[in-house]
Amino acid sequence: MLRLSPKDSLRFSETNSFDVVYGGGEPNVAVSLANYNIPVEFVTRIPKNDIGKLALMEMCKHNVGTKHIVEGGDRLGIYFLETGAVNRGSKVVYDRAHSSMSTIKPGMVNWTEVFKDAEWFHWTGITPAISQSAADACLEAVKIASSMGITISTDFNYRANLWNYGGNREAIMTELTSYCDIIIGNEKDAAMHFGIEPQGVENVHEGDRIKEKAFLSVCRQMQAKFPKIKKIITTLRGSISASHNSWEGVLYDGKSLLKSSSYQMTHIVDRVGGGDSFMGGLIYGLLNFPEDDQKTLDFAIAASCLKHTIKGDVNLATIAEIEKLMNGDSSGRVAR
Amino acid sequence: MLRLSPKDSLRFSETNSFDVVYGGGEPNVAVSLANYNIPVEFVTRIPKNDIGKLALMEMCKHNVGTKHIVEGGDRLGIYFLETGAVNRGSKVVYDRAHSSMSTIKPGMVNWTEVFKDAEWFHWTGITPAISQSAADACLEAVKIASSMGITISTDFNYRANLWNYGGNREAIMTELTSYCDIIIGNEKDAAMHFGIEPQGVENVHEGDRIKEKAFLSVCRQMQAKFPKIKKIITTLRGSISASHNSWEGVLYDGKSLLKSSSYQMTHIVDRVGGGDSFMGGLIYGLLNFPEDDQKTLDFAIAASCLKHTIKGDVNLATIAEIEKLMNGDSSGRVAR
Amino acid sequence: MLRLSPKDSLRFSETNSFDVVYGGGEPNVAVSLANYNIPVEFVTRIPKNDIGKLALMEMCKHNVGTKHIVEGGDRLGIYFLETGAVNRGSKVVYDRAHSSMSTIKPGMVNWTEVFKDAEWFHWTGITPAISQSAADACLEAVKIASSMGITISTDFNYRANLWNYGGNREAIMTELTSYCDIIIGNEKDAAMHFGIEPQGVENVHEGDRIKEKAFLSVCRQMQAKFPKIKKIITTLRGSISASHNSWEGVLYDGKSLLKSSSYQMTHIVDRVGGGDSFMGGLIYGLLNFPEDDQKTLDFAIAASCLKHTIKGDVNLATIAEIEKLMNGDSSGRVAR
Amino acid sequence: MLRLSPKDSLRFSETNSFDVVYGGGEPNVAVSLANYNIPVEFVTRIPKNDIGKLALMEMCKHNVGTKHIVEGGDRLGIYFLETGAVNRGSKVVYDRAHSSMSTIKPGMVNWTEVFKDAEWFHWTGITPAISQSAADACLEAVKIASSMGITISTDFNYRANLWNYGGNREAIMTELTSYCDIIIGNEKDAAMHFGIEPQGVENVHEGDRIKEKAFLSVCRQMQAKFPKIKKIITTLRGSISASHNSWEGVLYDGKSLLKSSSYQMTHIVDRVGGGDSFMGGLIYGLLNFPEDDQKTLDFAIAASCLKHTIKGDVNLATIAEIEKLMNGDSSGRVAR
Amino acid sequence: MLRLSPKDSLRFSETNSFDVVYGGGEPNVAVSLANYNIPVEFVTRIPKNDIGKLALMEMCKHNVGTKHIVEGGDRLGIYFLETGAVNRGSKVVYDRAHSSMSTIKPGMVNWTEVFKDAEWFHWTGITPAISQSAADACLEAVKIASSMGITISTDFNYRANLWNYGGNREAIMTELTSYCDIIIGNEKDAAMHFGIEPQGVENVHEGDRIKEKAFLSVCRQMQAKFPKIKKIITTLRGSISASHNSWEGVLYDGKSLLKSSSYQMTHIVDRVGGGDSFMGGLIYGLLNFPEDDQKTLDFAIAASCLKHTIKGDVNLATIAEIEKLMNGDSSGRVAR
Amino acid sequence: MLRLSPKDSLRFSETNSFDVVYGGGEPNVAVSLANYNIPVEFVTRIPKNDIGKLALMEMCKHNVGTKHIVEGGDRLGIYFLETGAVNRGSKVVYDRAHSSMSTIKPGMVNWTEVFKDAEWFHWTGITPAISQSAADACLEAVKIASSMGITISTDFNYRANLWNYGGNREAIMTELTSYCDIIIGNEKDAAMHFGIEPQGVENVHEGDRIKEKAFLSVCRQMQAKFPKIKKIITTLRGSISASHNSWEGVLYDGKSLLKSSSYQMTHIVDRVGGGDSFMGGLIYGLLNFPEDDQKTLDFAIAASCLKHTIKGDVNLATIAEIEKLMNGDSSGRVAR
Repeated sequence: MLRLSPKDSLRFSETNSFDVVYGGGEPNVAVSLANYNIPVEFVTRIPKNDIGKLALMEMCKHNVGTKHIVEGGDRLGIYFLETGAVNRGSKVVYDRAHSSMSTIKPGMVNWTEVFKDAEWFHWTGITPAISQSAADACLEAVKIASSMGITISTDFNYRANLWNYGGNREAIMTELTSYCDIIIGNEKDAAMHFGIEPQGVENVHEGDRIKEKAFLSVCRQMQAKFPKIKKIITTLRGSISASHNSWEGVLYDGKSLLKSSSYQMTHIVDRVGGGDSFMGGLIYGLLNFPEDDQKTLDFAIAASCLKHTIKGDVNLATIAEIEKLMNGDSSGRVAR
Repeated sequence: MLRLSPKDSLRFSETNSFDVVYGGGEPNVAVSLANYNIPVEFVTRIPKNDIGKLALMEMCKHNVGTKHIVEGGDRLGIYFLETGAVNRGSKVVYDRAHSSMSTIKPGMVNWTEVFKDAEWFHWTGITPAISQSAADACLEAVKIASSMGITISTDFNYRANLWNYGGNREAIMTELTSYCDIIIGNEKDAAMHFGIEPQGVENVHEGDRIKEKAFLSVCRQMQAKFPKIKKIITTLRGSISASHNSWEGVLYDGKSLLKSSSYQMTHIVDRVGGGDSFMGGLIYGLLNFPEDDQKTLDFAIAASCLKHTIKGDVNLATIAEIEKLMNGDSSGRVAR
Repeated sequence: MLRLSPKDSLRFSETNSFDVVYGGGEPNVAVSLANYNIPVEFVTRIPKNDIGKLALMEMCKHNVGTKHIVEGGDRLGIYFLETGAVNRGSKVVYDRAHSSMSTIKPGMVNWTEVFKDAEWFHWTGITPAISQSAADACLEAVKIASSMGITISTDFNYRANLWNYGGNREAIMTELTSYCDIIIGNEKDAAMHFGIEPQGVENVHEGDRIKEKAFLSVCRQMQAKFPKIKKIITTLRGSISASHNSWEGVLYDGKSLLKSSSYQMTHIVDRVGGGDSFMGGLIYGLLNFPEDDQKTLDFAIAASCLKHTIKGDVNLATIAEIEKLMNGDSSGRVAR
Repeated sequence: MLRLSPKDSLRFSETNSFDVVYGGGEPNVAVSLANYNIPVEFVTRIPKNDIGKLALMEMCKHNVGTKHIVEGGDRLGIYFLETGAVNRGSKVVYDRAHSSMSTIKPGMVNWTEVFKDAEWFHWTGITPAISQSAADACLEAVKIASSMGITISTDFNYRANLWNYGGNREAIMTELTSYCDIIIGNEKDAAMHFGIEPQGVENVHEGDRIKEKAFLSVCRQMQAKFPKIKKIITTLRGSISASHNSWEGVLYDGKSLLKSSSYQMTHIVDRVGGGDSFMGGLIYGLLNFPEDDQKTLDFAIAASCLKHTIKGDVNLATIAEIEKLMNGDSSGRVAR
Repeated sequence: MLRLSPKDSLRFSETNSFDVVYGGGEPNVAVSLANYNIPVEFVTRIPKNDIGKLALMEMCKHNVGTKHIVEGGDRLGIYFLETGAVNRGSKVVYDRAHSSMSTIKPGMVNWTEVFKDAEWFHWTGITPAISQSAADACLEAVKIASSMGITISTDFNYRANLWNYGGNREAIMTELTSYCDIIIGNEKDAAMHFGIEPQGVENVHEGDRIKEKAFLSVCRQMQAKFPKIKKIITTLRGSISASHNSWEGVLYDGKSLLKSSSYQMTHIVDRVGGGDSFMGGLIYGLLNFPEDDQKTLDFAIAASCLKHTIKGDVNLATIAEIEKLMNGDSSGRVAR
Repeated sequence: MLRLSPKDSLRFSETNSFDVVYGGGEPNVAVSLANYNIPVEFVTRIPKNDIGKLALMEMCKHNVGTKHIVEGGDRLGIYFLETGAVNRGSKVVYDRAHSSMSTIKPGMVNWTEVFKDAEWFHWTGITPAISQSAADACLEAVKIASSMGITISTDFNYRANLWNYGGNREAIMTELTSYCDIIIGNEKDAAMHFGIEPQGVENVHEGDRIKEKAFLSVCRQMQAKFPKIKKIITTLRGSISASHNSWEGVLYDGKSLLKSSSYQMTHIVDRVGGGDSFMGGLIYGLLNFPEDDQKTLDFAIAASCLKHTIKGDVNLATIAEIEKLMNGDSSGRVAR
């Protein structure tokens, strides 16, 4: 997606130029992985015009593979972003209806070819939410990936303004999720998509945080419903203001709940893509520290913490920077 | 429409920001008229979101009335513009499909109310070209305007990449044109929309210009077919390069052909909206110099000549500046 | 006034371009009201040149009426703003001497026409402070408004570098205030303009805040001196640093003192216009929640709190955003 | 003076930022001379505020001496510049009324100290045109300079919108001119200020150029009236359009008329300061090639020709660049 | 190389920001070829730091292969560019001394691996001119390429300020050239590097152009000296001014001289990289129209003509745009 | 040095333009002093090209003397700065190798002339760290200054990535330091350069701060080793994050340790040059409050505190602003 935003914290009506970056749930994860030197292919559908080409070039610049991207359809999705401050939240105006990706259909991508040398397939809950045909294409991909023994991860990434094409969300999400190994999602996703509620806990929340015991209950029900699931992970964001958030993550490894360090992000530069950068760090960790989920979780949360200091959708933090932070150096001293 | 363009003559792939202006065939004419202190209302349909509101604010800033604009639909049309130079032409990528305007339908605008105090209604050939329902709404407007005795003008404004919704172009344009008093169009429009070809002239063109006699023949056939037509006007652009055009206009007043002065626009700043600024000048002239078509034509061509020195879709030249130029002062001396 | 400021927190000597916005005590209030869909006319005097026209266009863009603005005089007032950070305060260099507004005289505006359909007239203490003739014109307006039964409000808005034309400040302010219904002012204004000091309180201040009892004493004396006054309101700003202020307001309703919520504005974007945005919110509240002064005060303080996150003089926060904040959601989460 | 201008060829109403440069008739000449390594002091009056300081810093940056500049008064003069293109001329809106320089008075500058080590004093016709006290101060300077045997030059630099304070222009200019050695001025100045008209030539102009014989007649009458005059020089600008001018100069050396080469400035970047850069080149030539007026004239015209390719008021061309051009290399090849 | 340039035609001392692009003789050719969908690898040496990485990312963005680029050395070469106008030429300040590329040595690149699947190797005369070790590495590459039967092209690209390390230019260039099939160079290169002068022609030049007969004589001597040479090509630039050049090319095919169309580039946007874009077009033509040297020459000259309308070092013109121009459409009409 | 940095907190790979400022340890101190109206000459070596001239002009703009600067060598040193936020620290990429300054040699500067009217000489530890010849030139300067009775100060300013030319750091620094009166340095410098460790303190640090007693021990050993030393000063930075530091200073006056106020810099604009601005304030204080070291220290720490709110390397805070802060007003209220 093309992201158009006024400079700094200007409101839409104050600007006569838009900064341009490219992003979206899936490409954001792809760029993170490419930055960690993990070979990655981004699969999507873009229009055959100069604007579609810009998205391609941006992926190439970040060393994300584009050879499976298909051309066609009317337009590249756009979103307009107004960046907030203090108690004025950022504002997103989506203009993604009728995008090339929303009119993708099963058969358009040769998934067998895509997955030939792949180890991992990641999709997000946005794809099945934009149109029936995109949901169908997503299911096609997931089925083929599964049949080829590839690890499958998803980020439920629920957006209130999607799912308005009339599809049966619960059925679709249930089938898609049944193929997944790794889930990023929270108790709201579980309730909304699958009717799963925490059991045996009196007050589920403490402040705006779910209690550990409650989340554990949700994870266990999820695991029971979807036996293929190996891990369920979620981030916990404390929104003190648009400029200051706290940030941590929890990982259910099938048995118990691991907790990451907690960060205070006191002067947020760009909050968009925070979750995607967490996903990118998580996949990196799962691939590189398969025996150490705590390290994986700490890497993912430190990676996404740094994302909040970087403008744009994608995370440009390096492994060295992330490791420095996860090893406790949050001093922000000048490196020279 | 939102217009997004890289600065200066940068290509799309060289920029990370887009300049933002608002424009389109009809609003461009409206702003011209407002600048000439003619009370004007712009009637269109925009989405109920912050981006639609930007277009509204821009109209207000230029003193164009917005009280008849209706809200609804998915999105504001967008076009991307890459500005050319020398022998690299400017490039437009349209992203106007599914715009709020393209899904307008008869009944959405209260035309009787719109035309209550109006003298003039202007529409362009772009509206019937974007969708059947927009063509229907345009016809609805034209019929009501006609029944209320309002002068109707049109600019055929043919765009090759429109008319792809399957409508019967000849039938639609014939009906719409039959209600019009003032036409901007050329021999290609006449041939394409109505099958009218110049008669009695051997070689129709001289260089890339139509011969006067040939155009006269077309005008007379048009007049025969559409008896309501009072004047047919066209501009003659000589494209020496993207940076240098020649510019003049001809006006058929029902009897003979008047010719404007000819200008050399040697360092074009922004060529987009040139025709619309001509239309704006023309309506101003027809309202203010009803007895002097030569003056009207000279005003319109001088107005649009100045437009080529102004960035953006709309013409910001003032009456004083236009009159200075039409009175022969093209020296561009500093006013201080 | 034209406001010229270096980008971000650059000092004057670091920039080679100035950002341009328009503002001033009265237009800032006008734009707030227009944003809340209250019909509003801005009355001022601007020079008959292109720079004066810019101010007009900006008002039109924000839907503020301009039909009573008169043209004349030498120049549009200018102020240069250098935006501070942390313990470097923002710096204003005024260049407003000899502005068109400062040479306004009684008789230049047809106030009877202005107030024909009006309910409310707002003036600020800056106008009588710039010149004797402006003070005279202000008094003329206030008298006519009063005679026509219109509610009159003022913001004393004292500026140390004004009042240097030699007028009798106490006499002028006393006469002007005697016509007012609603006052924004604090204990310093009362002491300076009217010689009113808090009575019966030993230590008037607690830190840099006036004690409630002391302010109440001031309000009661004000009310005794100016029986027309219905409410006295003031904001309480805690300047922790240029980047971080606390913010609340108190309203004396003729009987007792109401207090607003208190906000921490931890990453201020633009502090200029904070008081004006409070005034805008206050008038909106008094018109819309006439029975609920607490709600009015909370609306006004939330409105102005949001202003501090918005660049420029005017407040672009919407009613929805203000209500969200006054209802307790200061989380600044992304709206998407 | 502070010059504020929209970027590129944007109109005032299209920008939300102004580019900032410093300039004016006299400082422009000063910067030219400093660039040619001629020690130069700029004498003016600026306000004691941050904006005045900006002007000072700019002079220092260009190595122009500032030690005789006096502080005081209300404001730095401002002018707004909208840069034209093709047949839309550039537009200047002056906001220089009440500037610190316009309220300068005799006695404020210690001219004896200023001229202690000076060889040359240059003033322009703008100074006596802004106020009586500035005219008086100018006369004071000219008299002292003359009494100390310093060469005096002037550029008449007539501006239609000045001289409105009611001073007796003819008397003032006659007295000031009587002290001058070197004059830049044309037949219009001579007629307007001194009632001198060409004699013995039937049609004074050829196109928009004065005939050589006519100008010679004017020069000789000037010389008769002002016996101290040694040379009269004028530039001849052919305004083909705002983007394309022709440019040459003529110099009357007390006996005959020398003509410079003629240049076509086909893609003008910034036309403002063209005359001042000519004056700068002229003084440099008169000081360095005292025996070779043709070389001086050619240097001055080449210098000012290059100015038209440089943004801002001041000429940043170097001696090497000017000599390259005056020696015939106008190819504009890349130097690398 | 990193190219740093003030915006538009600003001089160095007028800017406080530099536009950043990447370029250089060889990468410019590489990007052209990548744009024509020719698989291409760029081989160079860059420092192991963030600035080196920027160059890498830029190549990736344009789909130029980077897998053979080696890391090491101190710094990325930089050049500062001030863009001229009219008779002020552009100015380049090189800061390329001690660059990573200048300290490359034989053995650092595995040329056998590089050339494994290659058909063509292109080098420029800049490489042997920067240091002895770079000349040695270039010779190493040329020898291995030659031994593997790969076509070798060069652009002599003489720069006066290079070759100052003391190497024997004639010997080095003679050996390097002896391996080449395709040469871009002119009579000055031939004279300077090889002592070859035109024979049998009285006045070698006509204006600033070499006579055809003279160039033919040079080509034939070149061919005699370097029997491997198949074609010698040169461009003919007419520098009317920095803003307006004429442009054509000639190609010696071993027998006779072919001439391209001639273009007037009347509003040059960026002249840097003109020759490299010609080389890119030439290689494309030689690969795609092996039987039609005229078409190749016309493609190359049209490609480089378009480059002059594009900012930056690299040519972003597409095959479609080039073919449109070489087929005679230089009208620069808007494509929409 | 030329400093090139992406706008705001953009990463290198996100920008296509660099903001340009000039700076470096010594010029930063010079500009501070010039801002305090202390006559100051900056002595350095710059290349004879347009980029070197930019540095000169910047010094002139800030009223720093340049008459002793010598021209020569290859290039102006450059550093690239990426500004961090929160827990992403700023990043500096040096490109200063082979700079004109690094190839300075004894004899190039006429130090006797330089010091003729000087009272004070300041050098930094960066100079001897860049090359042997620079170290030699520094020693030459220090010896001559000392012989002429001039006060000598230094800031050790250790940079890990320098001192790589192989010089004997301990010997060089020992000799240079032996001539110094005023030292800015900390316990790490003392240990590294001179092998001095705190004595008689068990745990030297408390958190990341050295204990007072320990620093006192270091100071006394320094004083014993270098009897000329009069004062040793150091700043104490607490890096809470890249956006928030605490800041204070301590001064050893030969007997005891004075402590400054402590500041919280909660929204840092630019941290680079913080130490240099402290040095500038210190020299100002030592010259102006020779009897009041506490005042000197408080001035220096307040000056450098303000520097953190100002973009660029140099401190643009004024004496008035610094005194306001050191007198306790850190409220950052708007001055108007």
